[in-house]
Amino acid sequence: MEQAYAMVIESFGEALKKHLFDIPEPACGETRIRIVATGICGSDVHVWKGEDERSRLPMILGHEGIGFVDAVSGGKKDIFGHTLEPGDLVVWNRGVSCKSCYDCLIKRRFYSCKNRWSYGFSKSIHDYPYLNGSYASHMLLVPETDIACVIPADQVDPEADYVPYVSACCAGTTTACAFEQAGVESSDTVLIQGPGPLGIYAVLMAKESGASSIIVIGGTEERLQLCKEAGATFVLNRKNTTVEDRRKKIMEITGGRGADKVFELSGSAVAVEEGLPLTAVNGTYLSAGIAVDVGNVGINWFRHVVRKNIRIQGVWVGDMKNTWQAVKVYERHREILDRIITQRLPLEQATEALRIMQRRKAMKVALIP
Amino acid sequence: MEQAYAMVIESFGEALKKHLFDIPEPACGETRIRIVATGICGSDVHVWKGEDERSRLPMILGHEGIGFVDAVSGGKKDIFGHTLEPGDLVVWNRGVSCKSCYDCLIKRRFYSCKNRWSYGFSKSIHDYPYLNGSYASHMLLVPETDIACVIPADQVDPEADYVPYVSACCAGTTTACAFEQAGVESSDTVLIQGPGPLGIYAVLMAKESGASSIIVIGGTEERLQLCKEAGATFVLNRKNTTVEDRRKKIMEITGGRGADKVFELSGSAVAVEEGLPLTAVNGTYLSAGIAVDVGNVGINWFRHVVRKNIRIQGVWVGDMKNTWQAVKVYERHREILDRIITQRLPLEQATEALRIMQRRKAMKVALIP
Amino acid sequence: MEQAYAMVIESFGEALKKHLFDIPEPACGETRIRIVATGICGSDVHVWKGEDERSRLPMILGHEGIGFVDAVSGGKKDIFGHTLEPGDLVVWNRGVSCKSCYDCLIKRRFYSCKNRWSYGFSKSIHDYPYLNGSYASHMLLVPETDIACVIPADQVDPEADYVPYVSACCAGTTTACAFEQAGVESSDTVLIQGPGPLGIYAVLMAKESGASSIIVIGGTEERLQLCKEAGATFVLNRKNTTVEDRRKKIMEITGGRGADKVFELSGSAVAVEEGLPLTAVNGTYLSAGIAVDVGNVGINWFRHVVRKNIRIQGVWVGDMKNTWQAVKVYERHREILDRIITQRLPLEQATEALRIMQRRKAMKVALIP
Amino acid sequence: MEQAYAMVIESFGEALKKHLFDIPEPACGETRIRIVATGICGSDVHVWKGEDERSRLPMILGHEGIGFVDAVSGGKKDIFGHTLEPGDLVVWNRGVSCKSCYDCLIKRRFYSCKNRWSYGFSKSIHDYPYLNGSYASHMLLVPETDIACVIPADQVDPEADYVPYVSACCAGTTTACAFEQAGVESSDTVLIQGPGPLGIYAVLMAKESGASSIIVIGGTEERLQLCKEAGATFVLNRKNTTVEDRRKKIMEITGGRGADKVFELSGSAVAVEEGLPLTAVNGTYLSAGIAVDVGNVGINWFRHVVRKNIRIQGVWVGDMKNTWQAVKVYERHREILDRIITQRLPLEQATEALRIMQRRKAMKVALIP
Repeated sequence: MEQAYAMVIESFGEALKKHLFDIPEPACGETRIRIVATGICGSDVHVWKGEDERSRLPMILGHEGIGFVDAVSGGKKDIFGHTLEPGDLVVWNRGVSCKSCYDCLIKRRFYSCKNRWSYGFSKSIHDYPYLNGSYASHMLLVPETDIACVIPADQVDPEADYVPYVSACCAGTTTACAFEQAGVESSDTVLIQGPGPLGIYAVLMAKESGASSIIVIGGTEERLQLCKEAGATFVLNRKNTTVEDRRKKIMEITGGRGADKVFELSGSAVAVEEGLPLTAVNGTYLSAGIAVDVGNVGINWFRHVVRKNIRIQGVWVGDMKNTWQAVKVYERHREILDRIITQRLPLEQATEALRIMQRRKAMKVALIP
Repeated sequence: MEQAYAMVIESFGEALKKHLFDIPEPACGETRIRIVATGICGSDVHVWKGEDERSRLPMILGHEGIGFVDAVSGGKKDIFGHTLEPGDLVVWNRGVSCKSCYDCLIKRRFYSCKNRWSYGFSKSIHDYPYLNGSYASHMLLVPETDIACVIPADQVDPEADYVPYVSACCAGTTTACAFEQAGVESSDTVLIQGPGPLGIYAVLMAKESGASSIIVIGGTEERLQLCKEAGATFVLNRKNTTVEDRRKKIMEITGGRGADKVFELSGSAVAVEEGLPLTAVNGTYLSAGIAVDVGNVGINWFRHVVRKNIRIQGVWVGDMKNTWQAVKVYERHREILDRIITQRLPLEQATEALRIMQRRKAMKVALIP
Repeated sequence: MEQAYAMVIESFGEALKKHLFDIPEPACGETRIRIVATGICGSDVHVWKGEDERSRLPMILGHEGIGFVDAVSGGKKDIFGHTLEPGDLVVWNRGVSCKSCYDCLIKRRFYSCKNRWSYGFSKSIHDYPYLNGSYASHMLLVPETDIACVIPADQVDPEADYVPYVSACCAGTTTACAFEQAGVESSDTVLIQGPGPLGIYAVLMAKESGASSIIVIGGTEERLQLCKEAGATFVLNRKNTTVEDRRKKIMEITGGRGADKVFELSGSAVAVEEGLPLTAVNGTYLSAGIAVDVGNVGINWFRHVVRKNIRIQGVWVGDMKNTWQAVKVYERHREILDRIITQRLPLEQATEALRIMQRRKAMKVALIP
Repeated sequence: MEQAYAMVIESFGEALKKHLFDIPEPACGETRIRIVATGICGSDVHVWKGEDERSRLPMILGHEGIGFVDAVSGGKKDIFGHTLEPGDLVVWNRGVSCKSCYDCLIKRRFYSCKNRWSYGFSKSIHDYPYLNGSYASHMLLVPETDIACVIPADQVDPEADYVPYVSACCAGTTTACAFEQAGVESSDTVLIQGPGPLGIYAVLMAKESGASSIIVIGGTEERLQLCKEAGATFVLNRKNTTVEDRRKKIMEITGGRGADKVFELSGSAVAVEEGLPLTAVNGTYLSAGIAVDVGNVGINWFRHVVRKNIRIQGVWVGDMKNTWQAVKVYERHREILDRIITQRLPLEQATEALRIMQRRKAMKVALIP
């Protein structure tokens, strides 16, 4: 009889081990997924190295999955009221919120739910639903999972490449959450710090928000070039400019005002210290790239916050709305966003893939079961 | 012939000198005011000591004036379309914005106008309109000044005490600007740092925003008691509690969540470092109390901004809308707000009044010409 | 053995019949409530008369319940994370939404959920959970119900009168939903059409939004007087004024502008035709009082919508956030809101109570099991 | 000596007469413009026929002008702080607001200013500044006019075609104002009624708001085709479909929900009656196309407003922010927007041009002095 398998962290920082599992039969409301691909997120490297306090071993990594419904029970519907069927290509929100607490109901922010847990982060293989990360051939999604059918079973193209959808699940979702809160106005100027997967989504979302200038700061020339193809109007390479060079250039482009909306998508505390002074009077500085404690940031509170009426917005993950927005952005801009996946490896090579990501030798590796 | 007079700073930090002026005849659109009273703001002490980079000597202090229209020319109207007449009791916005630049027209924030200048801050007595601060018997308001008639001439009560209106001009205005941006929702919890004039307005505005708990942290017992009378549900005295005591108490009151909206109205960088960790997940931290460079504030960016989806909002002054809102709040709550004026002195004793404010021996001194 | 009972509609418009039920044992996540009181809503009269298309007979009316947890299973928590215990005084949202569809997740409006059903409206006594309306001694709440503990078991006062909380469940909730969308700004003028239960909540919410004038139009003098006690600054009785009288008076009060925010809470199409022309340029007209098809309203689209930049907002019910907001408003203003309950009757007299409501002889009748 | 000339309405509905004027010397703050082109707006036809109550004869039509600064006095600056110089290509807001009344300062909506007057609408040739409409060789802009330099004198290309900028002045501005208020969210569905100049801007702005579907209803096949080139995902021709056909199609495209944001840009009351039922639950219906009294619209208030939580927003003109947004949209999409100008005629043929517009034989005619 066929079995499912997953790549499991048994000890932090060591090679993942392939484990076999019985293929689970979905109970009422559950959905079994046959994974098409999983993306490797920068956070996965942190978890693997034991830097994320949520982790419990042994565990399956993976929160950027795309897959086909393999079996489903109890008439589970997607967000559009479509009853899921085997063969549907689906995405799901990586986090499962309780939808009954203060942050879910009174603040209406599911991603801030205190009871939220995430596939590929929070559970060990001994915790229900066991196959709970996407570094696997199959996953079992609990009934409370938010699922969206991307392509119904009868329209799936067996020749098509669905792997690159994975970038929408986490990078696209978080960027959509940042843009939802940014309130970019038509003809605002936008500055993006960090041309990684989030940054490339951000260029496209800035363009789809009517930004008149889209400036990107980064350290990798080819990523900056991809940003330009995506619609960036100006790119600045950290490697061959100083902070002061960049400040001057950005002030020149923005008529001396700085950028109306600035997105930190780089994961670096230094970016915050560079970025706040580049934010225009009445502007907004959003920070969505930092996923681990990077220590203190020093801010001249009067000059860079109060005197300029600056808004700062922290952004942590996103909800199903943001995932759906990211999926639609992906579908409108495949020619750009497919290129986020710079490398594909068999799932069995997950450890090597994590090392590649750790050394920043790829923008994003996709693992294929 | 009668003359106007004003108390003038000739040298920073030294006693103000009484200067006499010809009473000016208003040209088209100008309004001459007979000052009823001026409030002394904490900022006045900074200007007097030479700590405000905008100042040019010799100058007249005073941006918290209330007065009667004394003469007016050219059919100048107030914001309600009322043609001003001698005898009208009026307030005006301390700042004059160009209403034709990017921040005025594209961002619609007059208080961020690059061309904005303020009565009592920016001009010397040699700059038009010369009588340009409210430490004076009379002022001349330029045509571009936003003016609101508070009581029409025919309804002015000669026995009434109009002096305490001065608290609305700056303290109330800035607090209203903070509340306009805070978006306090019905049943939010509110924390206020600093029970000075801004803090007392904040308690009332929090109540008028439907806050369910209003907590105030301060260092002066009698100010905290006034906050309680105004509607604070809990007060904490810095003098007899530690930061940790306060944190515990606030977490207890808020069910472990922290406050939904936190207002820094204390002028202290230390308050920011205490207040951000007291802000609830998805909460907003507004900083409106800091008016001079207080150096760097250190923030654990991941824990106190990103991970909690925190919004931080700098607040600098306010516009005529906010002044009007403050005037209406004042009129609805005179029994509380009259008590902000803890001392009244003749205008000639302006120097002594500044010293009292400098030593924090009064909440606010009003000077009466 | 003790039994539960409920008043059941067997035929539309006829006397309700008392049915006995076995007291149900809650399964996992369910909560059994011992009803303290239920309010009678105007909608109940519509359902009773067979005018609501959702109804299926035989059914139990009642969506305005307050009660004690009687038994609970599976560690069900309230919105604050409090694990419910027997003896807790609780309220719950009358509607149960799926929290997994487009309107719930993408629009984040649970009250617009296509799969939403309501206690006391949508189900017959043959549909799970059977005891599904509050005209009963006990109810069984399904696990998906949003519940808030109002007073924990150990703080319940056996002498206290908890009956009047029922006004928050529907009238207060819908009004809170309207105010959440209205965006009343500090010092806005507010006009309220209809001084019934929603109107009285609206006066208090307007005051708690910083409104500077609160005008109420109604047809019952004593309700208008209650509005004045609640904070209305001006009331107008339809019985002794014409539409033109009222228009003139409202224009006089608002300086010729009309009201910034107008709330239709009267259930009448005629109110809409009167109210739109009373809405200020840039104002908002909210309609929350109409619960059945009242036919067409004729609007001069250019003069009353386009030319004045008017916003119109339909308001249908509300979600748990709004219920919670209403409960807090109730608790802050009991001295006013207790008086919404103008009559109390034993539950067995439900039919008589419906007749009283139908004849508009009471503001709200509470039924006590 | 050279003279200015303008085409003047002496009697409503009759041929415009060419009048000669002395070329005015700008006084302090005034700007003299040499007109490059003026667009003919549908409103111009209404004014010409005597259907606009603001008009006073004899008058110069024209509020859609583009031109070069010809002379300027007093260091007049544009919205970016650029001191205007002869040769600068500029646009200006057609309306002049007082910026000191309730709607300007408290509501911050300059376009609702009670004291607003518009070039080409409100003044006769006997009213300052006399050359106050753009059907002229020159205009004189009063100091209070909001002006934006589109191309500085030293970058103007003598070969370039600047005529099509005129579409941004009114059609683009009003559409931008509608979009500013619409709050289109990423991946919303958008329905546009009317593929005229406003509709074509709307397609582009919907795309620049991240809309996932953009549906246009119109009556002219070639305009619908232009919408498709601009980014419309579906177009429906009124000429060969019924209201019911269109409803079915739109429900099919939107998964049975209707469109999240619907824009009435057609000028027709019938469109409102068709459009409201096509608006999704929680959706917004914006009406920006109706510029004259079209009588009453009948709305089933319960079914189409209240029950669906619909927002309706009237949209009247726009301010300088919206003009600037429209100019930037124009510059990003010239290949589409240049085609709004379907015909160019010498200014002297203004009467013929008005007749062409009246007969709807052109999308927009530009007049060239």
